[in-house]
Amino acid sequence: MSSEQQKIRVGIVGYGRLGRGVELAIGQQPDMVIDAIYTRRAPLEIRAHTPGVAVLAAGALDAGRVPADVLILCGGSRDDLPEQSPRYARHYNIVDSYDHHARIPEHLAAVDAEARAGGRCAIISCGWDPGLFSLYRVLGEAFLPAGKTYTFWGEGVSQGHSDAVRRVEGVADAVQYTIPREDAIAAVRAGQQPVLTGPQAHRRECFVVLEPGADPDAVRAAIVGMPDYFAPYQTEVHFVSQAELACDHAAIPHGGMVFRSAHTAGGAAQLMEGGLRLGSNPEFTAAVLVAYARAAYRLHARGDFGAKTVFDIAPALLSPRSGAELRAELL
Amino acid sequence: MSSEQQKIRVGIVGYGRLGRGVELAIGQQPDMVIDAIYTRRAPLEIRAHTPGVAVLAAGALDAGRVPADVLILCGGSRDDLPEQSPRYARHYNIVDSYDHHARIPEHLAAVDAEARAGGRCAIISCGWDPGLFSLYRVLGEAFLPAGKTYTFWGEGVSQGHSDAVRRVEGVADAVQYTIPREDAIAAVRAGQQPVLTGPQAHRRECFVVLEPGADPDAVRAAIVGMPDYFAPYQTEVHFVSQAELACDHAAIPHGGMVFRSAHTAGGAAQLMEGGLRLGSNPEFTAAVLVAYARAAYRLHARGDFGAKTVFDIAPALLSPRSGAELRAELL
Repeated sequence: MSSEQQKIRVGIVGYGRLGRGVELAIGQQPDMVIDAIYTRRAPLEIRAHTPGVAVLAAGALDAGRVPADVLILCGGSRDDLPEQSPRYARHYNIVDSYDHHARIPEHLAAVDAEARAGGRCAIISCGWDPGLFSLYRVLGEAFLPAGKTYTFWGEGVSQGHSDAVRRVEGVADAVQYTIPREDAIAAVRAGQQPVLTGPQAHRRECFVVLEPGADPDAVRAAIVGMPDYFAPYQTEVHFVSQAELACDHAAIPHGGMVFRSAHTAGGAAQLMEGGLRLGSNPEFTAAVLVAYARAAYRLHARGDFGAKTVFDIAPALLSPRSGAELRAELL
Repeated sequence: MSSEQQKIRVGIVGYGRLGRGVELAIGQQPDMVIDAIYTRRAPLEIRAHTPGVAVLAAGALDAGRVPADVLILCGGSRDDLPEQSPRYARHYNIVDSYDHHARIPEHLAAVDAEARAGGRCAIISCGWDPGLFSLYRVLGEAFLPAGKTYTFWGEGVSQGHSDAVRRVEGVADAVQYTIPREDAIAAVRAGQQPVLTGPQAHRRECFVVLEPGADPDAVRAAIVGMPDYFAPYQTEVHFVSQAELACDHAAIPHGGMVFRSAHTAGGAAQLMEGGLRLGSNPEFTAAVLVAYARAAYRLHARGDFGAKTVFDIAPALLSPRSGAELRAELL
């Protein structure tokens, strides 16, 4: 890149944890620059982390005229993306992290129709699961058809389960960690191809702040007995102070592993493994979104329109380096 | 696939370990069938493992008329592929496992010229390194620009080092294992981003059959003192009988790990890991080649000609399943 105006201009839509992660991740990329941050909150109340970056009202996007080459949509899958992704895909190249697995086909169709009508490229459901872990699953199955695929999540914070604990009577605040069971991972690594139910693959740990006067035993019983969320799982509940929760459990680590355990037809046992240990889940998801934004920009430039997923993206499109450099240094 | 004639017809060129692995791997794929095995040896002396599969002289390929949709070239990188890949790419879609890293640009250019002239698609340097590990390296660097990439090989048999041991005076036969050092892996997993020389990352173990009357101490000294190959490495030499070597060291296991250790710009430590534990190195390489043969066939069908590497191939092209199925089940 020889000058600023050749860089890919990225608009960040939404400025929560993920949006801030995207802002920071763009600063690590040599060929990208932030167009602006777009928010539905009052823009004047928000200051961007990066000096000089404009914070604008999301309404500025509606006419399809802002000079962003790609928008990275940093809203939630439940309320924001089903509406935003199709709407913005009509006028802009977009990337999102839509993660309601069961509704991805519907989301893809809605985004695809708008992106094709507008001549834009949209890459949906980027991140690590869906995203990088999805790639591991496809590669594993394509290379090794006769086998089993395993996905383990954690050790990491599950927002859905943390929310469920917070709704228990007597709980002031809580963080829940999902943790892969070591016995399950050992069996998979040993090539045993076990059949694993959810509770055989994962266990749960909760760090709970009690409301004043709440009965710890009653709270513990309510948590570990909660159907679906906790009852079938090995669950540990630890009571901590609000200060301890803020100090020891404020980070949002996550990670996990994808295994493909198989036999090739000559009889040999083969094991593929992909893993992540993330100090910050939103920062890593943001970093993945930024790389796919580069791919969306490039596909649009070559006239490849419509909605895509990570399965449709050649790896070279994710890198700022040329094909010749990648072949010389990383192949 | 509703009938045999819709299947992708794969020609196997070369029938050593890799060629036999490809033959077996095709049997695990629902959408592929073997066209024939092509050999430069006397075809009548070779019987295919699969009943009914023809073994033909490689000369049959020269006129560009055999009904294979893709050829998988199973020869060696030193003597076979530099000549075969460009020659066959003129008339056929091809896949190869060319692995002389330093010469890949030259090989790519030669294959590309012929494939474009003939309107064919060629995917070179498929396998696991180069191949799957190359993908891990590109993904790691694209997602996490501020970090370090590590590749460890093994535990597995290195043919080059085994050959070097066999050339030592007094050695009748030998197998050499390359083994990642646990201290190095632990440091990388802990996010320490160590600077590792070759000998700090790997150690070596040799299983050696002595010639009658050979002096074990002299043989051991000759091996561990061999410049470049062994002298800088922690090397163990074990003497075994030919029967033990045949019984305990006939398999060709391999594997390894690729790590990307980095910090996102918010300061969080992030670790990506991709690993393989292969019971059979040639059978896994063969399985990867077969999946890329599917991609070569599909790219040719859409008019995408020329030489490619794994970096240019969208993951969905590797799978027999439709995009809709992949999104529904693996995303």
